[in-house]
Amino acid sequence: MQALVLNQGLSYRTDVLKPEPKAHEALIRLSLAGICATDLELVKGYAGFSGIIGHEFVGVVEAVAQTQDAHWLNRRVVGSINIGCHACDACMNAGPEHCQQRKVLGIRQHDGVFADYFTLPVANLLAVPDAMNDQTAVFAEPLAAALRVREQCHTLSVNKLAVLGPGRLGLLIAKVLVLAGHSVDVLGRTDASLALPRQWQLNSGLIQAIDDVSYDCVVDATGQASGFKQALRILKPRGSLILKSTFSALEPIDLSKIVVNELNILGSRCGPFAEALALLNQQSIPLETMINASYPLQAGMAAFQHAATPGVRKILLYP
Amino acid sequence: MQALVLNQGLSYRTDVLKPEPKAHEALIRLSLAGICATDLELVKGYAGFSGIIGHEFVGVVEAVAQTQDAHWLNRRVVGSINIGCHACDACMNAGPEHCQQRKVLGIRQHDGVFADYFTLPVANLLAVPDAMNDQTAVFAEPLAAALRVREQCHTLSVNKLAVLGPGRLGLLIAKVLVLAGHSVDVLGRTDASLALPRQWQLNSGLIQAIDDVSYDCVVDATGQASGFKQALRILKPRGSLILKSTFSALEPIDLSKIVVNELNILGSRCGPFAEALALLNQQSIPLETMINASYPLQAGMAAFQHAATPGVRKILLYP
Repeated sequence: MQALVLNQGLSYRTDVLKPEPKAHEALIRLSLAGICATDLELVKGYAGFSGIIGHEFVGVVEAVAQTQDAHWLNRRVVGSINIGCHACDACMNAGPEHCQQRKVLGIRQHDGVFADYFTLPVANLLAVPDAMNDQTAVFAEPLAAALRVREQCHTLSVNKLAVLGPGRLGLLIAKVLVLAGHSVDVLGRTDASLALPRQWQLNSGLIQAIDDVSYDCVVDATGQASGFKQALRILKPRGSLILKSTFSALEPIDLSKIVVNELNILGSRCGPFAEALALLNQQSIPLETMINASYPLQAGMAAFQHAATPGVRKILLYP
Repeated sequence: MQALVLNQGLSYRTDVLKPEPKAHEALIRLSLAGICATDLELVKGYAGFSGIIGHEFVGVVEAVAQTQDAHWLNRRVVGSINIGCHACDACMNAGPEHCQQRKVLGIRQHDGVFADYFTLPVANLLAVPDAMNDQTAVFAEPLAAALRVREQCHTLSVNKLAVLGPGRLGLLIAKVLVLAGHSVDVLGRTDASLALPRQWQLNSGLIQAIDDVSYDCVVDATGQASGFKQALRILKPRGSLILKSTFSALEPIDLSKIVVNELNILGSRCGPFAEALALLNQQSIPLETMINASYPLQAGMAAFQHAATPGVRKILLYP
C-alpha cells in the first residue's frame, strides 16, 4: 500500500505492507486525513518518532480482529489517538493519554493514518453520523483538542481571554471558547493572519499593539517558543497561561516572573471526541473556510510543504 | 544610623540618615531581622535593587506620621512587605503584592530593615502578641509565604506531595502542609540536609532515589534553577508544581513536557500574615532549631557569608 513514512526524513512509499489488526483492533481504510502542526514538528525531529505519521482522520472499518467487534464493520469512524495499557494508575484516572506505556497513533510506537490502511483499537473508535461529511468529521481530533482548553477554562476564574496565534488550532480554540460564552481576543503578528478570524466574526488584534497586562487567561497556540514570552507580557498577575503547542526547542525561561506574578501555567493536550463530534454536528463552525487544499497521498511531500507555509490553516490528504 | 546597604555590592555603613515616616507610615526601631534567600539573590543582582535590604523583621513603633495612628506607638510589630497604590485593579483584587506600582520593603523602591530604623505604612503592620518572643515573631514573613502554598494546595486535588529543598523555606512549607493534613515528603540532595527534617519528624528522602513519577504535587523550594527540572522528573501527569524560589537565572525549559503531561505550574509568593502570627502563637513549629546564629548589624557581612553557606537555615540580625 502507499504511505507517508518518517524515517529521519519523510518519504512517500508504495511498498508498505498493509497492516493486520491485532486483538481488539480494527483495520481502517482511510477516507480523509488532516496535517497537524504536530506532524510538521515530528518531521523536524520532535518526539523521535519513526514510522507512518498522521493522526487526524476519518475512515471506514474494513476488518476487525474479534468477531464480537463485527458491528464496527463498514462503519465510518473517527478515533481518539492514545492507546493506553488500561491497567495503570494513569489509565484509571487521568486517562490513556497519560499512560506511561501508551502508544499514540502516528506519534509514538503506532503507525499513523497517512496511508491506505491503518489499525486502531475499537475502544478508540467513534461512529460518524451519516449526515456529517468527511470534510467536517476530519476535524474531530483538533476540535477535541480545542475543547480540552474549554474544560480547563471552566476550572479557572476567567474574565478576559486571549488566544495567541490565529492558526489551525488557535481558530478552533477561540471559536469554542466564544461558543461557551467567554470574551475572547484572537491575537496575531500580521494583519493578514487576522483576516480569517475576522471572517469568523472573532474579536482580533495585533499582539504587538497590546502594551499592558490585559488578560486573565492567555492560550498559546502559536506553535513557537516565542509565544510563551509574548503570553507572559500580556498576562495579569495570578493569570493563567494555557500552553497548547508542542515543539522540540528548549526555551530559556525567566522562572522568577512566574513566581513574582503568581502565574498559573497549564499544559493542554488531547480532548473529548464525543463532545467534538456533537459540536461538529451543530455546524456552528465554518470549517470549510479553513481548508486551503486537499492532496492525494502520492503528492504528500508537496502537501507537507504547503502545510508548513505561513498563513496556511488546514491541508487534507486522501488516498 | 547603621545599615546594610546594597549598591552594586553590599556594605555595612554607619552614616545613613534615619528615615522620616511619610503620610500613613510608621517609623520602626528594629528588634530582630532574618536573612532570607531573596536577600542573598538581591546581593547577586536579582531584581536590580539598590538601597537598604532586609524584609523579615520584628520591631517597635517609635513614631507615626498621623495622629490618628498614635495607637501604634510603642507597639511591637511585624509587617507585610508589599506597599500597593490602593487604587488599581490588582490592589482591589489580587492584592497589593501584585500592584504594578508597588514598592516592596527592602526589595523594590523602599528601604528595608537591616538598619537601626525603617519605615512602613501602618496598614502593613500587625501587633505581636505579648507572650510571643522576638525569635518567634521574626518568622512571620517566611511562615506567611509558606502558608501561601497551603492556600494553593487547597485549590488542587493533591494526594501525595513532595517539598524539594530542605532549606529555610522548604522546612516551613513542609511543616505547615503536614499540620494541614497533607502527606508530605521532604526531598534533599544530601543525607546531611535531611537531619533537621528528621528532627522535625517529617518524612524525608534523597531526591536522586526517586526513580518514577510519584507525586501529585511538588513544591520547588530549592532556590535553584535545577529544582525545576528535578520536580518535572518526579511529577505525575496532570500534577502541579508550585514554584517558590526567585532567582535571576534564565533556565532552558522543555515546554513540550508541560504540554504533553498537562502539568500545572503555579508561582507562589507572599502569604497571609495574620494566619502566620496565629500559627506561631500555637508554638507547634520548633523554629529555634532552625536558627544557626545571630549577628549584630555591624557584623552583617559575616552574617551574609554564613547565610550563604550550604546547610545553613536561618541567620538573624540585631541592631
